Amino acid sequence: MPPPDVIAADSAAEAEEAVAASPPISSVLIVIAMQTEAAPIVSKFGLSESTTDESLFPKGVPWVRYHGKYKDLYINLVRPGKDSSFGVDSVGTISASLVTYASIQAFKPDLIINAGTSGGFQAKGASVGDVYLASEVAFHDRRIPIPVFDMYGIGARQTLSCPNLLKQLDLEVGKLSTGDSLDMSPHDESAILANDATLKDMEGAAVAYVADLLSVPAIFIKAVTDIVDGDKPTVEEFLENLVKVTAALDQAVTRVVDFVSGKSLSEI
Amino acid sequence: MPPPDVIAADSAAEAEEAVAASPPISSVLIVIAMQTEAAPIVSKFGLSESTTDESLFPKGVPWVRYHGKYKDLYINLVRPGKDSSFGVDSVGTISASLVTYASIQAFKPDLIINAGTSGGFQAKGASVGDVYLASEVAFHDRRIPIPVFDMYGIGARQTLSCPNLLKQLDLEVGKLSTGDSLDMSPHDESAILANDATLKDMEGAAVAYVADLLSVPAIFIKAVTDIVDGDKPTVEEFLENLVKVTAALDQAVTRVVDFVSGKSLSEI
Repeated sequence: MPPPDVIAADSAAEAEEAVAASPPISSVLIVIAMQTEAAPIVSKFGLSESTTDESLFPKGVPWVRYHGKYKDLYINLVRPGKDSSFGVDSVGTISASLVTYASIQAFKPDLIINAGTSGGFQAKGASVGDVYLASEVAFHDRRIPIPVFDMYGIGARQTLSCPNLLKQLDLEVGKLSTGDSLDMSPHDESAILANDATLKDMEGAAVAYVADLLSVPAIFIKAVTDIVDGDKPTVEEFLENLVKVTAALDQAVTRVVDFVSGKSLSEI
Repeated sequence: MPPPDVIAADSAAEAEEAVAASPPISSVLIVIAMQTEAAPIVSKFGLSESTTDESLFPKGVPWVRYHGKYKDLYINLVRPGKDSSFGVDSVGTISASLVTYASIQAFKPDLIINAGTSGGFQAKGASVGDVYLASEVAFHDRRIPIPVFDMYGIGARQTLSCPNLLKQLDLEVGKLSTGDSLDMSPHDESAILANDATLKDMEGAAVAYVADLLSVPAIFIKAVTDIVDGDKPTVEEFLENLVKVTAALDQAVTRVVDFVSGKSLSEI
């Protein structure tokens, strides 16, 4: 515990900042693709699963909502749920887009956190278990070789700048490239290189697209489950590390949410 | 004009059918990706563009809605509109999914018609200007090589069966494969072959996914602008034929809508 004069100084500084800044963030939407990734975070924040009536989603969709109060924040955590035909998590850009869109409409969040596992490139310094905050996102599997359409397809965009959060928390920073395949074709690889990406996932740029469309700031926390440019096959490495790495993801998301609580957007 | 006794016989048969069948289709949602593809159809059905207030879409989205009464149908035609950063039509699966989702929520259609241009495979009999009704749709750029996830990624699904429409109208029938690239990589090609597809587009399977999610029957009318397995580069052929082929698309959509008007789902 700091001595009282330090507390007083901090409080005064904080009060000044609060006057200058936007109101504190009160509602956070966490978007997570897989149940395995979501479970420890739901538990950590003590969120409860909504019943169908409470979910505010239309009848028939498999989307799952958890919600609750944590510190100064109201948290909604959503995942796209199990595909009704195949019973697997509805991973990928389309489901992530839809559940993000519907959740923004329903919950009017001040901030979106897209959290999940990803591939990492060792050539860019990534190792299994590292947790990154993505500085930029783009797509690597939307090739439209017509001028301007090509840029639309890539869809590169900046994420919310979080200088204080980065200073305070020990997170890596890198660019994220998104596509609907778990593997990487030679065409994907060229595009990922062109995107200068350290990370490869299946949802990030889609969540960013929808967040931008509806003007909600978004950040992207990605934990590395597999080394894309390494020796091991992606699928094996991904499945082997999924549970272990979600623990690192869970810790990072908690630290980010703890940091965000009580702050305004301009303070993070 | 047929002689009066033929009219009487037809009317009696129709009346019988109507008793047995579900109520007539009253609301149709037409989803089209590009302005060039949409314009002649908007004009043909005499639809008017909604103002921002009337659109029922959230503030900030570029989605465009046209609507009006045509014969016995209330028609909403939507397109994802121009990307706010790049000014080009928001083609591809994410935008198509979002605008289809939001339109189903807003307009509660009885039937969705996804109309647009596509590539065609001459090995499967396609020629430029041919118009197809897709019998099945699937994705060719969502490779997830984990058991069951692989099938989810491909996302093959049947479209609404329309035996009477096919009998009456002279439309080709073939399978449609969807991906977010205008070009075709070797990996895409293998997947398209595995999908047994005659047609390649950038939206169909995404519209089908959302339609299925919300239990709305959907049909897919695709006009061939370019031969994917031919000698000409896709982009040149696509741009060269786009306007000409949209005339064939326009005619086919009109004939389908004329056929649908006054009928129930089980009659088409």
